[in-house]
Amino acid sequence: MAHSSRLVDLVHERIEDFLAERTSILRSISPDLDPLDLFSRRFLSGGKRFRALFCYWGWEAVHGRGFDPFDADDEVDLAPVVSAAAALELFHAAALVHDDIIDKSDTRRGAPSAHRLFETLHAESGWAGEADAFGIDAAILLGDLLLGWSDELLDAGLDALPDRAAARAARTEFMRMRTEVTAGQYLDILEERAWVAQPDDEQRLRAERIIVYKSAKYSIEAPLVIGGAIAGADGAQSAALREFGLPLGIAYQLRDDLLGVYGDPEVTGKPSGDDLREGKRTMLVAIARERLSAGQRRLLDELLGDPDLDADQIRMLQRTIAECGAVDELESMISDHAARAVAVLERAPLSQAARSELGALVRTVTRRSS
Amino acid sequence: MAHSSRLVDLVHERIEDFLAERTSILRSISPDLDPLDLFSRRFLSGGKRFRALFCYWGWEAVHGRGFDPFDADDEVDLAPVVSAAAALELFHAAALVHDDIIDKSDTRRGAPSAHRLFETLHAESGWAGEADAFGIDAAILLGDLLLGWSDELLDAGLDALPDRAAARAARTEFMRMRTEVTAGQYLDILEERAWVAQPDDEQRLRAERIIVYKSAKYSIEAPLVIGGAIAGADGAQSAALREFGLPLGIAYQLRDDLLGVYGDPEVTGKPSGDDLREGKRTMLVAIARERLSAGQRRLLDELLGDPDLDADQIRMLQRTIAECGAVDELESMISDHAARAVAVLERAPLSQAARSELGALVRTVTRRSS
Repeated sequence: MAHSSRLVDLVHERIEDFLAERTSILRSISPDLDPLDLFSRRFLSGGKRFRALFCYWGWEAVHGRGFDPFDADDEVDLAPVVSAAAALELFHAAALVHDDIIDKSDTRRGAPSAHRLFETLHAESGWAGEADAFGIDAAILLGDLLLGWSDELLDAGLDALPDRAAARAARTEFMRMRTEVTAGQYLDILEERAWVAQPDDEQRLRAERIIVYKSAKYSIEAPLVIGGAIAGADGAQSAALREFGLPLGIAYQLRDDLLGVYGDPEVTGKPSGDDLREGKRTMLVAIARERLSAGQRRLLDELLGDPDLDADQIRMLQRTIAECGAVDELESMISDHAARAVAVLERAPLSQAARSELGALVRTVTRRSS
Repeated sequence: MAHSSRLVDLVHERIEDFLAERTSILRSISPDLDPLDLFSRRFLSGGKRFRALFCYWGWEAVHGRGFDPFDADDEVDLAPVVSAAAALELFHAAALVHDDIIDKSDTRRGAPSAHRLFETLHAESGWAGEADAFGIDAAILLGDLLLGWSDELLDAGLDALPDRAAARAARTEFMRMRTEVTAGQYLDILEERAWVAQPDDEQRLRAERIIVYKSAKYSIEAPLVIGGAIAGADGAQSAALREFGLPLGIAYQLRDDLLGVYGDPEVTGKPSGDDLREGKRTMLVAIARERLSAGQRRLLDELLGDPDLDADQIRMLQRTIAECGAVDELESMISDHAARAVAVLERAPLSQAARSELGALVRTVTRRSS
């Protein structure tokens, strides 16, 4: 775990250094841009850094040896993988800024979301026009800025890599990830509306497709494969990272779905039952709809996605979904997928240190409470 | 001009081929993604392709020789510059998709804007929820997708370039452009609201800053410099391209400001007086505010940015702004900037063919009606 925590520090430093350079560009244009700078830093200062960790351990898994975090003379060049890990965090911050606009989320990690920060800035500055519209417009641009920067940081890292084929492989995976996660997000917002026009027996399939593209590949599989590519992974190693990453990514998102309905607001930083108000058509909902009686299903469909659900209605929905057995089924799906990931690890052509750390990460991401 | 029109065809083909590859990725995920594909193509099928043209002529200016568009055996490798030009068009399409959300524009080039297309898709499909919210959410994601793709296309082009220093220079300019234009757009939406809190005597300065970053560097200077970099421009050549591109870019945007207020809707594809309803704080407005009496200025401030301005009010504002002499002053600024650009061209260390074509482009971009 010392490696992981040292890695998180290195990624944090890399992000800080990168943002400091960008600050000077923004400052040379106008001090009016300071909020873009300030809010970027705020969104990049925290988070679980799972993507950075998986990227690093994908690299370590192939590189075959660790680095000594306390030895300054260690000759392993970490710059490429640290920059790639930092780029994944920047990309994620960009996605969250846009995601919060789309989901109308007021909070992120217990603090105001980006569009709310800009809205407050407007309200406090005595400007003309509507504060909420400015909040959304400015946050669209902040997300765009961070998207571009994530790419810039990735390139800076890959430029430092002598192995050009490895750089190209890492970049190809990053680009595919970017297309796939955006497609997955589109399927997610589509499903919230289009489910009414879809046959009930395709719901699980559609929910799983969203999980795979919006989250599993993006959050775990791609970071692992990008890290591995930077270390020069061969076909078998990349395949092992994928076979491990995909089921773990699915388990990760299924846990997220449960937290979106049953999570403790104190721990998640999101209001209780947030996904219910948003009307997310998750695997949990798909399973519940299969299990509920026709009358209960109608009630669920009626309430799901109502932004004005009160605390009693949230509790009632939480109970209904749990009592039909959907939560138990989801928990067992999480265990099954986690077990599949662990099984892949046992016979994977990856370093011992990485296999051990990735095994620990399986527990962290599938049993977390935030 | 044969070169220009052949280049536009090549860029168009490159975009089509690139999108076809992306279609197969989207198709492999779900046919539900077809609208992302369809709308991408629609937004990339037209436009003036100014950015692509400036990129090409920046390249030609340095490369020092043209290519024979009718000679299939011509050995000049156009792939890198054609891909970079196509990437600029993709980036521009992404920016327009987000811009139209921000500006609440219903139309783009005479057809519905992206968020309106998604809104119609929702309305016609009988889905749940609100069509307009879906339109905006989906268009945010479409813009994100195109942003990522523009970068991917640039890299594909630069990977094919044997001169690594040239590739790095082109990329650095592209990235700086991306940061600067997003900063410029933020300053633009800020000024629409924050002008009330700013001293009147700083208005011109602020309007000029927006022009420089939102448009001049982005639309003309950066494409020229990127093209030049791909051909291996030296310091003097890059400087000449910048010294030519910046004043021309300013003239280009000043013409745009006039078209936003006085343009013929039949030709621009935008409603008459669109910028007045949006409340854009352009150089034209800054100059008019300096020239108007206090009473007229108050009236202008009151009406500007009211989305419900009727045809009579638009005509009244158009007349008020013209009669105070602001239009004449702007026209003379356009001529001055165009003349500065032409003067740079005369003594620039750039190819004869490019200097001649860039001279023609000065007339095209500063005297256009759409």
